Amino acid sequence: MRHFLIDTDTASDDAVAMLMALREPSVRVEAVTVVAGNCPLNVCVRNALITIEKANTYTPPVYAGRHGPMLRPLVTAEFVHGQDGMGDMDLPEPALKAANGHAVNAIIETARRFPGELEVVTLGPLTNLALALLMEPQLEDWIKRVYVMGGGGLGPGNMSPVAEFNFMVDAEAVHVLLSSKVPKSIVGWDVCQADDAYIHPQDIERLKASSELGRFVVRCNETLIQFNHQLGLEGFDLPDPTTVAAALYPEMITRQFESYTYVDHQSDKGYGQFVVDFQRLTTEKENATIVASLDGQMFKDKLIELLADQ
Amino acid sequence: MRHFLIDTDTASDDAVAMLMALREPSVRVEAVTVVAGNCPLNVCVRNALITIEKANTYTPPVYAGRHGPMLRPLVTAEFVHGQDGMGDMDLPEPALKAANGHAVNAIIETARRFPGELEVVTLGPLTNLALALLMEPQLEDWIKRVYVMGGGGLGPGNMSPVAEFNFMVDAEAVHVLLSSKVPKSIVGWDVCQADDAYIHPQDIERLKASSELGRFVVRCNETLIQFNHQLGLEGFDLPDPTTVAAALYPEMITRQFESYTYVDHQSDKGYGQFVVDFQRLTTEKENATIVASLDGQMFKDKLIELLADQ
Amino acid sequence: MRHFLIDTDTASDDAVAMLMALREPSVRVEAVTVVAGNCPLNVCVRNALITIEKANTYTPPVYAGRHGPMLRPLVTAEFVHGQDGMGDMDLPEPALKAANGHAVNAIIETARRFPGELEVVTLGPLTNLALALLMEPQLEDWIKRVYVMGGGGLGPGNMSPVAEFNFMVDAEAVHVLLSSKVPKSIVGWDVCQADDAYIHPQDIERLKASSELGRFVVRCNETLIQFNHQLGLEGFDLPDPTTVAAALYPEMITRQFESYTYVDHQSDKGYGQFVVDFQRLTTEKENATIVASLDGQMFKDKLIELLADQ
Amino acid sequence: MRHFLIDTDTASDDAVAMLMALREPSVRVEAVTVVAGNCPLNVCVRNALITIEKANTYTPPVYAGRHGPMLRPLVTAEFVHGQDGMGDMDLPEPALKAANGHAVNAIIETARRFPGELEVVTLGPLTNLALALLMEPQLEDWIKRVYVMGGGGLGPGNMSPVAEFNFMVDAEAVHVLLSSKVPKSIVGWDVCQADDAYIHPQDIERLKASSELGRFVVRCNETLIQFNHQLGLEGFDLPDPTTVAAALYPEMITRQFESYTYVDHQSDKGYGQFVVDFQRLTTEKENATIVASLDGQMFKDKLIELLADQ
Ligand SMILES: [Ca+2]
Ligand SMILES: [Ca+2]
Ligand SMILES: [Ca+2]
Ligand SMILES: [Ca+2]
Repeated sequence: MRHFLIDTDTASDDAVAMLMALREPSVRVEAVTVVAGNCPLNVCVRNALITIEKANTYTPPVYAGRHGPMLRPLVTAEFVHGQDGMGDMDLPEPALKAANGHAVNAIIETARRFPGELEVVTLGPLTNLALALLMEPQLEDWIKRVYVMGGGGLGPGNMSPVAEFNFMVDAEAVHVLLSSKVPKSIVGWDVCQADDAYIHPQDIERLKASSELGRFVVRCNETLIQFNHQLGLEGFDLPDPTTVAAALYPEMITRQFESYTYVDHQSDKGYGQFVVDFQRLTTEKENATIVASLDGQMFKDKLIELLADQ
Repeated sequence: MRHFLIDTDTASDDAVAMLMALREPSVRVEAVTVVAGNCPLNVCVRNALITIEKANTYTPPVYAGRHGPMLRPLVTAEFVHGQDGMGDMDLPEPALKAANGHAVNAIIETARRFPGELEVVTLGPLTNLALALLMEPQLEDWIKRVYVMGGGGLGPGNMSPVAEFNFMVDAEAVHVLLSSKVPKSIVGWDVCQADDAYIHPQDIERLKASSELGRFVVRCNETLIQFNHQLGLEGFDLPDPTTVAAALYPEMITRQFESYTYVDHQSDKGYGQFVVDFQRLTTEKENATIVASLDGQMFKDKLIELLADQ
Repeated sequence: MRHFLIDTDTASDDAVAMLMALREPSVRVEAVTVVAGNCPLNVCVRNALITIEKANTYTPPVYAGRHGPMLRPLVTAEFVHGQDGMGDMDLPEPALKAANGHAVNAIIETARRFPGELEVVTLGPLTNLALALLMEPQLEDWIKRVYVMGGGGLGPGNMSPVAEFNFMVDAEAVHVLLSSKVPKSIVGWDVCQADDAYIHPQDIERLKASSELGRFVVRCNETLIQFNHQLGLEGFDLPDPTTVAAALYPEMITRQFESYTYVDHQSDKGYGQFVVDFQRLTTEKENATIVASLDGQMFKDKLIELLADQ
Repeated sequence: MRHFLIDTDTASDDAVAMLMALREPSVRVEAVTVVAGNCPLNVCVRNALITIEKANTYTPPVYAGRHGPMLRPLVTAEFVHGQDGMGDMDLPEPALKAANGHAVNAIIETARRFPGELEVVTLGPLTNLALALLMEPQLEDWIKRVYVMGGGGLGPGNMSPVAEFNFMVDAEAVHVLLSSKVPKSIVGWDVCQADDAYIHPQDIERLKASSELGRFVVRCNETLIQFNHQLGLEGFDLPDPTTVAAALYPEMITRQFESYTYVDHQSDKGYGQFVVDFQRLTTEKENATIVASLDGQMFKDKLIELLADQ
């Protein structure tokens, strides 16, 4: 049994990713830690609790963490995910409650319980994980690997011409992770943009037809679908689910490589830019695994399978 | 009774400052938290324990904290304070031991015990305090005031042309404090450089003649005295003790004012520069009290008095 | 008849580009201005003179310009183009001599002679053109369009992970051009890297077989061919000739678009990065035409045709 | 006879400085070059011509130069010097006309005429001089010394907390000068702020009583006097005249020293900061002479003397 911890700024695509992990029988999500990002902290905590109830498998503890980035004011993305982060679908209050204790301490304590075995998946800004690394130096040894949704990979940004949302919200936190020796697999925004991984209208129909959770997944991404529609795009992308998939199913990864990477946390216009030295133009040592592509068909089939009515 | 917490990278002048606070009967040092700065963390912890033993009054718990800055590698200053940070005087191991628990949590818990009453004095890089502020948002309300030794005040730097040691070690931590609403009094390096606050050769003689602790104070600053001598200066400065004095004895402050201040944590050559907009050239609101000068004679008299044999 | 001015840091691929322009009967190269870049200024001037002799058509005046960037020390690229910038082929001294006068003044005076008609092609760092724009504000009106070889287009850099050579040598000069209202078409390094534009071994054989100038073109790129070979690549790219081709033969351009663009001239690691906001994530107005691809077959056929023995 | 060239963004205090130089018999002002700064270029040119007429000695040619900084939009200071830069005193049009030719070329040509002898005094942003240095590398050898009004010396800024007006308008130009080997004496804004150099109300009365030009000097600084009055200050400062005085009368300098200096042209908040490493905290070589103080009494006496009715 693999041991997972999911750190999330739970909005629509985080919810899909969490459903996948909670329904995959070969792993156990030992804790869910929540960070501000797509929405303010309390909204994200509520969405995490709702999602665990929807998964209907088991109930890992949910810990609230930082309400904003390390050094900068919080930037949220309700314009993409809805005011509630879940497509404004008027979800009822969850019966589950968040656990006592801080997400940062929960990351440390969970890793201490599973030294060398804990796999961390981060689906939001890296603030919680960065603070945990700063608070407990041994965490670098305890965590087996971090799977990070963030950065633009080898492509452009989505918040600024050069920066992706999760990394642009808290670039200092990214720098802390990249400076650590924790093994890391980074799944950029480019991965979910690939044609075979992108959720096209026909995939939406397939999801809707497949199960109640399939319909929930489409419904909570409704604001995103509308947002894309206004840009002239049909369908939606699933950055967090592709990241969870890369963590859960290594066989789904069709291309990955080691590289020296860094993040710009000092310049004004470039803040949050994630740079992958894939051409080895610097002399720096490799410090991350870049996941460059997934088998999109396998990803979608697995998603449907995990969401199936039971 | 006032309640103090001292955060320190204990080296020679931190030791003098701690002796003052521990021997001042009107305050109680509730905890000492230690951060890497002048020396690596374990050396600073040892020096803090030795100093408490030397003070011979009471034994606040000592908590170890961060072993380096938030984002950058640690820069130490053994060339100024000696390999042991205490003038290489071959001090015996202390009998006291550090308390269990992390300095960051200790800051939070001590403030929670004395909400609105805890006064924090920082004598080293602000890493511990910054992490505590990030971990516990209520800390901004709980802390009554922070007295900070750091920055160059209205003068130049001492590590780079524009940056003072404590602020240059961890400028991001300074930014976190300055961005918080905690009331803060900042005592720059310029205050202890003023002629009447500086420890001249005649002051050294007076200290030596005054008491055993007076001789200890001179002895543990011996490396600094030699360092200055090579620069053509006689005597030494006491940045941390002047800061503690400003906290303990407001009547000693001869000039202070409110100002908008910020720290450069983004540029290369300017990293760590503390800027005081004393001319009000920006439209930003005041966010700190700048202590600009002390009554040096009163400071030295009080120092001698506090160190007196009992 | 179109009127061209070519600004060049003449090395191997600049030479090919100049041969193309000088042999194309529908344009007249009114002046060649030289800037330091691939090689020191005097080496580039020599190569420009040799190339004009090789072209064997007419002899536009050659003006020496800046010997280095506006604000930074010069970085050259002899490791790519050879010590002489021309594949170390031991070329004899040219009989032609450079004209008197400064390249910056020559740009201004040539534009004044052909107001609204002069088309400028820049094949090196933009230092000369930037200084001309600073010296003569009317130049913005006089120049019909600038065709720039520089930046990575929508791809990565070739000197740093984010910056291409010409733009990284003098990013301030790029900023001056981008801040001006001169119409500009920017041909990035990505254009010549496209498979159909790249000079593969079979293209090399075709060039060698085609004409004396074809053999000269291959010969002067010999150092580059060897450099690529050590990286595991066969053949070579022609950034400057694709840029000249885009200027000479608009029908060869298969994709181009307008975009807001900027260059990083302020950060340390990002210096020289050219950012194309092709997704319109900023609200800035378009300021450049980005040439994204050429018809590589048409390019190679035309190259062979222009170099043909007469 | 010493040979001077004055580069100026002629407003009220530039006018005073020019009157001094034009009336000092031991030097000859060979040319006046004008740059945008306090006011737009054409206003400054007009003021320079008027000032030469007022001086009533001889008429050096006046050349217009750059209408703005190298890389940034122009920031002017009419709020300090009046809409006309001369205290809004409704001065009649000058009969003198500007010479043909660009200020940058005039600097180069004048230096070529007096190689090793030309002394340049800059009273505004350094844009013209920087472009001249970039256009003609030999200028570094031809200029005997540059006397620069700019930077805050060892004190604070006057436009931002860290930057003085002339250097903040065009920090890149400052960088070009500091990177050159031209001998330079830099007179910061601190020099004219010293109590004995500052023009107090009694000095104003003395000026008014002394001569027609004395009254003109007070009158054209009227906007500045009002500006200061609103800040609670009486009187006015004379940054440009103190700089000219340091150039004309070395015996007036009471303190100067060599130092490594640099300017921040890359950061956002620190743009234009001039840093003097007077404590030798870096290992960089000295590159400027810092004029730290003048004999204010001697300065004022000489000013009165030079302005006297003839
Ligand atoms: Ca997320
Ligand atoms: Ca200290
Ligand atoms: Ca070139
Ligand atoms: Ca001026």
